Amino acid sequence: MPNQAIANFIAERIPAVEANMRSVVDSAGVEGLRTMLRYHLGFADAQGRSERAPGGKRIRPALVLLSAMAAGQPAAIAAATPAAAAVELLHNFSLIHDDIEDGDTLRRGRPTLWKVWGIAQSINTGDAMFAMAHQALLGSVAPAERVLRAMHVFASMCVGLTRGQHLDISFEQRTDVTATEYLDMIAGKTAALTEACCEIGAILGGSDDAQIAALARFGRDLGVAFQIQDDALGIWGDPIRTGKADSDLAHRKKTYPVLVAAERDPIFRARYFDGDVESRDLASLREMIEATGAREATEAAATATYDRGLESLSGCGGAPEAIGMLSALAHSLFARAA
Amino acid sequence: MPNQAIANFIAERIPAVEANMRSVVDSAGVEGLRTMLRYHLGFADAQGRSERAPGGKRIRPALVLLSAMAAGQPAAIAAATPAAAAVELLHNFSLIHDDIEDGDTLRRGRPTLWKVWGIAQSINTGDAMFAMAHQALLGSVAPAERVLRAMHVFASMCVGLTRGQHLDISFEQRTDVTATEYLDMIAGKTAALTEACCEIGAILGGSDDAQIAALARFGRDLGVAFQIQDDALGIWGDPIRTGKADSDLAHRKKTYPVLVAAERDPIFRARYFDGDVESRDLASLREMIEATGAREATEAAATATYDRGLESLSGCGGAPEAIGMLSALAHSLFARAA
Repeated sequence: MPNQAIANFIAERIPAVEANMRSVVDSAGVEGLRTMLRYHLGFADAQGRSERAPGGKRIRPALVLLSAMAAGQPAAIAAATPAAAAVELLHNFSLIHDDIEDGDTLRRGRPTLWKVWGIAQSINTGDAMFAMAHQALLGSVAPAERVLRAMHVFASMCVGLTRGQHLDISFEQRTDVTATEYLDMIAGKTAALTEACCEIGAILGGSDDAQIAALARFGRDLGVAFQIQDDALGIWGDPIRTGKADSDLAHRKKTYPVLVAAERDPIFRARYFDGDVESRDLASLREMIEATGAREATEAAATATYDRGLESLSGCGGAPEAIGMLSALAHSLFARAA
Repeated sequence: MPNQAIANFIAERIPAVEANMRSVVDSAGVEGLRTMLRYHLGFADAQGRSERAPGGKRIRPALVLLSAMAAGQPAAIAAATPAAAAVELLHNFSLIHDDIEDGDTLRRGRPTLWKVWGIAQSINTGDAMFAMAHQALLGSVAPAERVLRAMHVFASMCVGLTRGQHLDISFEQRTDVTATEYLDMIAGKTAALTEACCEIGAILGGSDDAQIAALARFGRDLGVAFQIQDDALGIWGDPIRTGKADSDLAHRKKTYPVLVAAERDPIFRARYFDGDVESRDLASLREMIEATGAREATEAAATATYDRGLESLSGCGGAPEAIGMLSALAHSLFARAA
């Protein structure tokens, strides 16, 4: 299936998700808080005037909606639209707090929320968006038992995210992080959310337990594969396409290829974590990583995880249109590697 | 009913609530995060060793359990125990983030979480406790429709809390805050939670709509009355009993009596917000407040709100034992004013 089908699906279905997000956020009840929420989501500028700033690719809501279609029920998309809004709000809540925790000053080309309004108000605005994500999910149009089950998955995912974030922050202080620990961290930080997207979509769309579990596995593997690939792109990708330009190596980020290389080559580990390597030596760091075979190991790990995810997907017995589009979405995410 | 009945009730019923809190928190899945959660709740020291530090008075869980008893169903306390854990976790989440936002370094006589572990990990730990509060609530033993309804109330309350906190932070920069704006702020920051405690308890205990609404009003009024009284105690209370010793005036806190006085006396407003009044002049500030009649106005506002709350309670038609204990709990909170 061509990526055009996905692009069409997103163009057709995401506006209803965004309308849901807007209506939840607009219920904030106090103008200053509403402006901050709308600013972060790209709906308004810092003065509260409507604008249309980049708000992300809305991959996660698309995963929810397409997973909801798997059971083949006609009303599935409407049933899952509030949940699609919920996961996007939740994702954005985590970005607000991550930006504070990491001290990042730019997000999607604009100053981060805390940079404009300060840390205190921005922690609180993140909390508001967290609460509103739950409000959105509670608007799901499905039997009470299904909505409750989705809430359970959502709550566990939120705990998983904070677990992953705890590990990520603690890794900053360490030079002995293993590749296995790293995979454990991204299982929370990246994959918990994509897993929950697919699982919640399937629950609300009316899938049976086996299909729900298969789609959840697909979502998890997709998230892990995507993160590992993103790590590879940060080192070997086209800087124009990734917008990264060696910054991962320059900032001594602990990514999958780096940690694999560090396990294999103690000299590389020492040079990488010493921090006294100049920017002009980034090429030599890259060569050291390659010499350990870590590049191939990274690509193999990403591909194996991706393939396993697609196997779960193709074996889930879902409606062919939905499965075809989920597969195309996965492919388009993965085809970023060029 | 003597306060002893309340003390007995708390001694008998709160251990099960705390056991629920512990089991939710212990599922954190990573030792460092678990230690931080347990430290804040008073279950452990900063090294993760079990200890029994002050964890708060557990008023909110008691409100949940007693409101659940109103419908007179024998299993009500068991049904509502997870919700009682949820509101206490939620309350503690808000304390973790408030301490960061306010820069407070002490909480219940121990260093605040961020003071021990830094801001980044502590924002994230607050988020974890927020998510876990939802997990706890989802453990409620009640029909799915009732649990979902409780989740709705919980989510709205969380949004209300962030609304109140947004206003509270924004008030710090302003010298023109009105007493009406202040009441609007505490409606979110203090009363939203006590209201939700009673409403959720009643929902899970099996109350009908009228009883749920009456108990919700009782909870809201109790929270507002308690906060206004707390403001009065901060100025006129016995410093030994309140532990405050004029700090509200010294820090130029915008409390209800101060804002009433500022509306009535422009000279007081200017002196109070100028900030050039020495500590030794606190007595004269207090006299200026009293000269406007703000002390009487504060006491009248607290009493009227408290009385209205008790009226909702006594008219709710609940089981006499539960209503008697809720009334005694309210009385014991209010009798702090001496």
